[in-house]
Amino acid sequence: MVTAPGQFGARILDMARRLAQWSELPDGLMCTYFSSAHKAAAAQLREWMGAAGLQAEIDAVGNVVGRYPSAAEAARTLIVGSHYDTVANAGQFDGRLGILAALVVAEHLHRTGRRLPFHLDVVGFSEEEGVRFSAPYLGSAAIAGRFDAGILERCDENGTSLAAVLREGGVDLAAIKMLARRPDTLRGYVELHIEQGPVLLQRGLPVGVVTGIAGSARFRITIHGAAGHAGTVPMSARHDAAAAAAEIVLAVEQRCAAAATLVGTVGQLAVPHGLINVIPGCCEFSLDVRAGDDATRDAAIADILTAIARIAARRGVTADVIELGRHAAVPCAPAMQTALAQAVARAGTEPLHLASGAGHDAAMFAGVTDIGMLFVRCGNGGISHSPLETVTSADADLAARVLLDVLVNLAK
Amino acid sequence: MVTAPGQFGARILDMARRLAQWSELPDGLMCTYFSSAHKAAAAQLREWMGAAGLQAEIDAVGNVVGRYPSAAEAARTLIVGSHYDTVANAGQFDGRLGILAALVVAEHLHRTGRRLPFHLDVVGFSEEEGVRFSAPYLGSAAIAGRFDAGILERCDENGTSLAAVLREGGVDLAAIKMLARRPDTLRGYVELHIEQGPVLLQRGLPVGVVTGIAGSARFRITIHGAAGHAGTVPMSARHDAAAAAAEIVLAVEQRCAAAATLVGTVGQLAVPHGLINVIPGCCEFSLDVRAGDDATRDAAIADILTAIARIAARRGVTADVIELGRHAAVPCAPAMQTALAQAVARAGTEPLHLASGAGHDAAMFAGVTDIGMLFVRCGNGGISHSPLETVTSADADLAARVLLDVLVNLAK
Repeated sequence: MVTAPGQFGARILDMARRLAQWSELPDGLMCTYFSSAHKAAAAQLREWMGAAGLQAEIDAVGNVVGRYPSAAEAARTLIVGSHYDTVANAGQFDGRLGILAALVVAEHLHRTGRRLPFHLDVVGFSEEEGVRFSAPYLGSAAIAGRFDAGILERCDENGTSLAAVLREGGVDLAAIKMLARRPDTLRGYVELHIEQGPVLLQRGLPVGVVTGIAGSARFRITIHGAAGHAGTVPMSARHDAAAAAAEIVLAVEQRCAAAATLVGTVGQLAVPHGLINVIPGCCEFSLDVRAGDDATRDAAIADILTAIARIAARRGVTADVIELGRHAAVPCAPAMQTALAQAVARAGTEPLHLASGAGHDAAMFAGVTDIGMLFVRCGNGGISHSPLETVTSADADLAARVLLDVLVNLAK
Repeated sequence: MVTAPGQFGARILDMARRLAQWSELPDGLMCTYFSSAHKAAAAQLREWMGAAGLQAEIDAVGNVVGRYPSAAEAARTLIVGSHYDTVANAGQFDGRLGILAALVVAEHLHRTGRRLPFHLDVVGFSEEEGVRFSAPYLGSAAIAGRFDAGILERCDENGTSLAAVLREGGVDLAAIKMLARRPDTLRGYVELHIEQGPVLLQRGLPVGVVTGIAGSARFRITIHGAAGHAGTVPMSARHDAAAAAAEIVLAVEQRCAAAATLVGTVGQLAVPHGLINVIPGCCEFSLDVRAGDDATRDAAIADILTAIARIAARRGVTADVIELGRHAAVPCAPAMQTALAQAVARAGTEPLHLASGAGHDAAMFAGVTDIGMLFVRCGNGGISHSPLETVTSADADLAARVLLDVLVNLAK
């Protein structure tokens, strides 16, 4: 049976629904690294890849790799992939949409006897979200040759190290570095992913061409003020840590509204052990700042840090700011953007270019090979990391057809 | 041995230190209702009261009552008391200072043979903080005739009901209502308490005369916005629940700075299950508003609720506001204020009048009998509900001498 263009969408949505049945949660989707659900999802993907005519295997770190080989054995390899792990209470499409679209397209090529001048590797990366070990891109990093052995010692919330989990799964740790592809063996990397935002929805477009992946920086900030009785300390004598944090939250919001691709988020916010009748002596929060280019992001961070210092000084509180990491923005290859845009136009839709505010496995391959990304419209206002995440069958179909077109045209 | 005026302070501080050794925490003071530490503290107080010559007993709800009887058996009773339960990681003086000052003064009266025309009941109330069963004033409510049998079904965090705890302690629940004093048997109620705020400290005064206990209102507020990916949703498209909460926190702060006795506190603030890379879809916080008079408080609450609605509407989020309770302000009796002020002046210090922003056992006796309260200067910037809470020996001494003077002069 060949799934034809026009039927790709229904097939992809059906597989996404079936894949989501493997979950750590009774009601809702959660599939974190090397959980039982994760192993079952990997086995399911391998089975489907095998049935699609691909040479399928699960590698040492849990990536499911299905090869549609080129006739020329010495050909380079084009990787088309995304991840199958999820956050807690996830949607069905984040990551998986890209694997399943690549799968149906590869199957179509195989069934129709269309050979490519490069090996096509459909990859379901085992880990991108970083939920279990705070080590995102674990699967793609291994194949991109960026696996950091230092993360083997990281532990999950049960105190089990990544190394222990891998060993228990029968993995030879030394084999992980063998997964790295030599850059000169790669033709490129293409990833199809749900947008996880509202831009395409607002623009009325089913897909969009990604210009690059935003740079990000993350901070953990703790305000120390003075606790006190809620009834007895006059407002003028307070050093309220939560009020200081509130002012900073609004400063972040205001500053990050000042540039187009810039976003700033305080996602975690808490008064530890807060009591209804005690002025907060401490308030903790996170800060995530991203922008399409590093200069825009760094300028915003500098202004925010200045604002934090000014607010803390005026309120007589202290602010401990810990920078957790800063990742440079990653551009998609111009040639890949052009190939994707032409295919989008041939599909009869406007080739909108947009930046990705979220990180993706593609970022691991930047600098290793040419990367390209196609975003697919996210329904429900653009919500993701939620059971409310949706993709229409029509959009999934069009996206897969664009992917097929790109592969055929990259082959020329 | 008679503790003389001038030696009251050292004796009180020594007893407070010894009483604090009974604790639920290995490092720090915690003494919640009917814990082992609480029962031990009660036994200690009864022992000290007995040694001081008082007729001491522990009543059905755990109040420790030590009577220094009048020569006239049919005389009315003046209650002088405060509470011996504590919050977690408490200071040594909140509540206990008032019991111990009354104890040394009653002992002095007894040892010096000074009889009063009223019975003097020194009472250590068993429960005022409301930590274990969220039922504050449990001890004073019973004696004031305001015990609400409905709270017997409330459970602590282990799921044990108050009724079960009392029964296990051998308490006949029917006996609780027998603890209520008939108003016509009472001469009045006097409470000495640490200020728990910075006013006396800032004014350079050891004690102050309380004009009344502020009215309070408490709310629980939940903001529902829209969760989203921190990298993919433009700032202009967000409905960030934490940012809305932050704006409300600052609105509370600003509004409550607009009147002298008015205070407003957001003591609890949290993004439930917040993630560093997810826009908060929900944010929960508490609100506590107090003022010396109910009109001031209610006007502030009305303005704050209007601000919440306005902020929520503008940001496209919803605000669920639950009012947990509203308690009217309680005035201290003018005659008691006068008696206290005259005694303070005779002790050679300025009789500053100030409102109490915190609730106290005295509030239970308002409307039952005349109440009066004397505040004692709180060191360390006025911090309370903290191990940093301090009272100097000199201040405790002066406060006890004022109390003695008041008792002697009320007797005239």
